[in-house]
Amino acid sequence: MDPILAIILILVVAKGLGEIVERVGYPPMIGEIVAGILLGPSILNLVILDPTLEAFAAAGVIALLFISGAEMNPKAFARARDVSVLTGAAGVAVPLFSGIGVGYLLGLNLLEAIFLGIILSITSIGVAVRTLIDLKKLNTLVGSTIVGAAVIDDILGIVLLGLLSSIALGEAAGMAALALPIALSAFFLLFAFTVGKRLVTWAFLRSRRMRTHEMPYTAAIIIAFAAAYATEAIGLHYAIGAFIAGLMLGDQIRKDQGLFDGLVDFAFGFFVTFFFVSIGLLVRIEPETILSPLLVPLIAVALAGKTAGGFLGSLPYLKDRMQALIVGFGLTSRGELALVVAQTSLAAGIISVGLFSVVTLMVIATVFLAPILVKWGFSRMEATRSLTPAETE
Amino acid sequence: MDPILAIILILVVAKGLGEIVERVGYPPMIGEIVAGILLGPSILNLVILDPTLEAFAAAGVIALLFISGAEMNPKAFARARDVSVLTGAAGVAVPLFSGIGVGYLLGLNLLEAIFLGIILSITSIGVAVRTLIDLKKLNTLVGSTIVGAAVIDDILGIVLLGLLSSIALGEAAGMAALALPIALSAFFLLFAFTVGKRLVTWAFLRSRRMRTHEMPYTAAIIIAFAAAYATEAIGLHYAIGAFIAGLMLGDQIRKDQGLFDGLVDFAFGFFVTFFFVSIGLLVRIEPETILSPLLVPLIAVALAGKTAGGFLGSLPYLKDRMQALIVGFGLTSRGELALVVAQTSLAAGIISVGLFSVVTLMVIATVFLAPILVKWGFSRMEATRSLTPAETE
Repeated sequence: MDPILAIILILVVAKGLGEIVERVGYPPMIGEIVAGILLGPSILNLVILDPTLEAFAAAGVIALLFISGAEMNPKAFARARDVSVLTGAAGVAVPLFSGIGVGYLLGLNLLEAIFLGIILSITSIGVAVRTLIDLKKLNTLVGSTIVGAAVIDDILGIVLLGLLSSIALGEAAGMAALALPIALSAFFLLFAFTVGKRLVTWAFLRSRRMRTHEMPYTAAIIIAFAAAYATEAIGLHYAIGAFIAGLMLGDQIRKDQGLFDGLVDFAFGFFVTFFFVSIGLLVRIEPETILSPLLVPLIAVALAGKTAGGFLGSLPYLKDRMQALIVGFGLTSRGELALVVAQTSLAAGIISVGLFSVVTLMVIATVFLAPILVKWGFSRMEATRSLTPAETE
Repeated sequence: MDPILAIILILVVAKGLGEIVERVGYPPMIGEIVAGILLGPSILNLVILDPTLEAFAAAGVIALLFISGAEMNPKAFARARDVSVLTGAAGVAVPLFSGIGVGYLLGLNLLEAIFLGIILSITSIGVAVRTLIDLKKLNTLVGSTIVGAAVIDDILGIVLLGLLSSIALGEAAGMAALALPIALSAFFLLFAFTVGKRLVTWAFLRSRRMRTHEMPYTAAIIIAFAAAYATEAIGLHYAIGAFIAGLMLGDQIRKDQGLFDGLVDFAFGFFVTFFFVSIGLLVRIEPETILSPLLVPLIAVALAGKTAGGFLGSLPYLKDRMQALIVGFGLTSRGELALVVAQTSLAAGIISVGLFSVVTLMVIATVFLAPILVKWGFSRMEATRSLTPAETE
């Protein structure tokens, strides 16, 4: 299909369904993913996720996380650091081991069971962040904890994937494969928050002194894409670099309302939609998959594992069961990274077509249920609070 | 190359060179095209114009022409209608016949000579409009005339291309091949300015009442892309539909400064750059081409033919030699359409590699010279005017 026609079709269907979902009271993101399922191979088979749409989707998740970083209060995010680390770790460990266990019980071979555990341990940063933005809860302690834990989660997920591929390749060099991504991630974070922050702020401030009127806008986009590319190059998800770039430039960008609004429109008015539609396009729903005996147990483990991990990891810090529960809910969404890992594992012969299809449906189920659970949690929390004396968060 | 890396590289080099060119006092567009030549096959061979970058470039020319249409005063444009039609026609006729004549004198065969005439008759709407925007002259009588004539030019160019391909294919159905694009173009314009305008305005106003905050921004983009796609589907350039959509929605969009600024940033802060870089990427400069005896005569005919056609076509209405001369200068740029026609003709065996390469260099020469000539013309005109009593335009 002509790419211009694909762009029109995606924007019309996704924004239309998003609007309907929003009127019903749920995050519009759900409508955008449904648009992808509708236009993609599962139903109408009109739009294929070709390299051009993949580039638009990548730009979308970069724009989404950059804006999230820029909207986030860096102090609140820093305050949530310790709770994020423990929550991220518990949010990976519980689903990992329960996935391996369930896989074993259901009769999968060891490699498939480990794969299942890893897939279950990767939260979708994009879905988690968009849910919080749609519900206007990004800058709460719960919101910061979810985002921070999702970042930690991604780093641990990459380490696990390195481990899985060394097992699959039968390599003895497993420890080396583990050490490299950890070292690179640590170096990147250290660099980013020291030299990187100064460099980026300097470059951005310089762009304001240029003759070219739109230079600060372009500079912000360049910085977001470059940081995203840097994290992608060291094996992390695009989204992490873009988020860190947003955190760094947030103060500068929020000072200029016109610039900030322009970048928000660039993200939410255009590119972000392609990211959520691409999740729907990656999915292939078939009747026999829906009837698979694996499906219901898998969805149950996916929801229970992350909720338990997030709850247990954050409760010691948050000291509030409802808040800790919402953190758990916020981490339940799996997204494009889980789908891409499933696809490459299918291509590498690690998993069967049957397991791949069930995983696909599990991802979609979590993507729909996570925002609903988070929304329910926040409204329960606020209902309870209005009965008790006011408290600061 | 990873598309995200290509995006970063293109934005950094193009905006950097654009800034330098602007500081020297010329339209930044020249720096962006040089960036394409630098990154492309002619010099560094780092970036290839793949389908993804082609989609970004198409989105760029759509965004450029949509903003131009929205910035344009529809009354000024309507006032320039008659002069535009005559100027467009003369601006096609003179280069067409002088191209055929020069080709014949230089010993090309008839088909090559006709091809040369057609290539010389297609003005680049994108370059013409961007020059006027960069010089802040879009909303002058001269500016409206240039844009209107470039639109007419494109319609006539498509008719001529239909003619060329029927000659090349040896078809007798030449007249039918001519009638269809004319009829479709006429129908499109008629539809656009009657039912189309109402439909588009209604759809845009509805988008303002949606829950989704960024909906008017997305709606404007959808309308621009859809109108562009419609003109592309009937055989005209993307740019024309986008320009007409901009004209239609201009009043609505200019009412909302935040929305307008956001769309201008979307265009000039991101997508438009890919369009101008893509022109540079299409070019292949080789030493033997620069030494070709065809080169200098071809550039001379390219400049003289359009300048003469634009001058002769607009003088009866404008009654001012300097203004008519600037109109002629404004039409001298050939761009991506000429390059694409040259490429397809090369692939179809209509023209030789030698002629193709020379045409490529001619296009680049006009793209660099046209903005310089237009800028010179306006500054001459203003210098003369400051000596004579004030006059209304």
